[in-house]
Amino acid sequence: MHRILLTIAYEGTDFCGWQVQPDGRSVQKTIQDAVEDLVGEKVDLTGASRTDAGVHARGQAAVFDTTREIPAERYAPALNQRLPEDVAVQSSVEVPPDFHPRYQQVRKTYEYRILNARMPLPQERRWAWQVRTPLDLRAMRRAGELLVGEHDFGHFCSQKAEVSSTVRTIYSLDIVQDGSILTLRITGNGFLYNMVRIVAGMLVEAGRGKMGAAEVQEALAHPGPGAIAPTAPAKGLTLVKIEYPEANLSADLCRN
Amino acid sequence: MHRILLTIAYEGTDFCGWQVQPDGRSVQKTIQDAVEDLVGEKVDLTGASRTDAGVHARGQAAVFDTTREIPAERYAPALNQRLPEDVAVQSSVEVPPDFHPRYQQVRKTYEYRILNARMPLPQERRWAWQVRTPLDLRAMRRAGELLVGEHDFGHFCSQKAEVSSTVRTIYSLDIVQDGSILTLRITGNGFLYNMVRIVAGMLVEAGRGKMGAAEVQEALAHPGPGAIAPTAPAKGLTLVKIEYPEANLSADLCRN
Repeated sequence: MHRILLTIAYEGTDFCGWQVQPDGRSVQKTIQDAVEDLVGEKVDLTGASRTDAGVHARGQAAVFDTTREIPAERYAPALNQRLPEDVAVQSSVEVPPDFHPRYQQVRKTYEYRILNARMPLPQERRWAWQVRTPLDLRAMRRAGELLVGEHDFGHFCSQKAEVSSTVRTIYSLDIVQDGSILTLRITGNGFLYNMVRIVAGMLVEAGRGKMGAAEVQEALAHPGPGAIAPTAPAKGLTLVKIEYPEANLSADLCRN
Repeated sequence: MHRILLTIAYEGTDFCGWQVQPDGRSVQKTIQDAVEDLVGEKVDLTGASRTDAGVHARGQAAVFDTTREIPAERYAPALNQRLPEDVAVQSSVEVPPDFHPRYQQVRKTYEYRILNARMPLPQERRWAWQVRTPLDLRAMRRAGELLVGEHDFGHFCSQKAEVSSTVRTIYSLDIVQDGSILTLRITGNGFLYNMVRIVAGMLVEAGRGKMGAAEVQEALAHPGPGAIAPTAPAKGLTLVKIEYPEANLSADLCRN
């Protein structure tokens, strides 16, 4: 038995999300079908992140087990011949049989893209949330800096999930401006449900002058239910990469 | 009578190009219909660049004349309410009645996007030409530098066009790398038919080691018919901006 780890990129626009759903077109099922067609046996594909409908990925990770003796690196090109154009495998490597993409110490990086302009830009309509009010980038950065480090992010998830703890560590949070495009790039050891989209929503409130550093500090100091800000639209979000501590894996995954 | 200059962005994927064609969906006709619906009279929309099918724009320029007394800046939002999501007006200003978007001293900037990777990236499938062979960026830059300045670009257009001269000036040519994406950015006083796509094709030949500086110098020194390299695919090309020397116009257009 071989366990194969795939790094996967997709445009989320026309998917119901990662996870298999009764009537939806899911990324998981689309890739699983391609793998089964290739290896000629039933497989279970387990993903690292259950991205929502409309969310994109450049570096999603997923594993499956197979009895087939195919060199691991050959899966990527062979699967891409069987996949539709909105999803593509970026790399394939063999991992130890006890490797699990979700129960592993990881660093995850997401990007959230904002078009800060009065007029829509057709090129960005699938990738960025358009915010018409001019945003104060310095105010956004001041609010964002407060999130870096280990905190209880209870006010930064959209429902009381069945997680045992809402404590997470954010390693870095940067906002880069390129003309009318603002890109939030955030790396952490894990994210709660809708956490990055709520952080994006909070930063836009800060950029509009409707939320200050004091409110963010208060929300971190007194965690509890109830999101601090509206959840930003799914289409602005991209799962950029997942880094596993095993050197050989992170090296491979980092290429993406 | 008022002459209104529009700055226009579009995704070229589902258009037959800028120019009206009998059976195609053109950008020109799409916008002209929206203008006529708004002003309630027939108009002629004249564009600065006749972009081909599949070519995108962030800063196309076009003018029309109208008898209506609408403040010029109101055209952009009003037209966007009437336009499909793959085209949007970025700004609208009034210009002198003798202003013509094509017969004017201008600086035009184009970008050409290359995905240099073995695997396809779904996010880039409408915006970048995928080249699987690893490209030598230094060789590409050496070849690109030779084009800067005033030259006869007879070997850099795909047909003997009805132009009186194939001499053009390239002010700058830069290649920027961001991961697996190479972006060629080129500014000049005008471009021959398919010129930027042939330059992109030539640079990829140089990056593959199949064309050297000597051949590029030779082509510039002895201009004539016949393209130096294959024409790169349309989808990688974006018309970024057109700068007019009138200060008030370039200021407005440069926002895009």
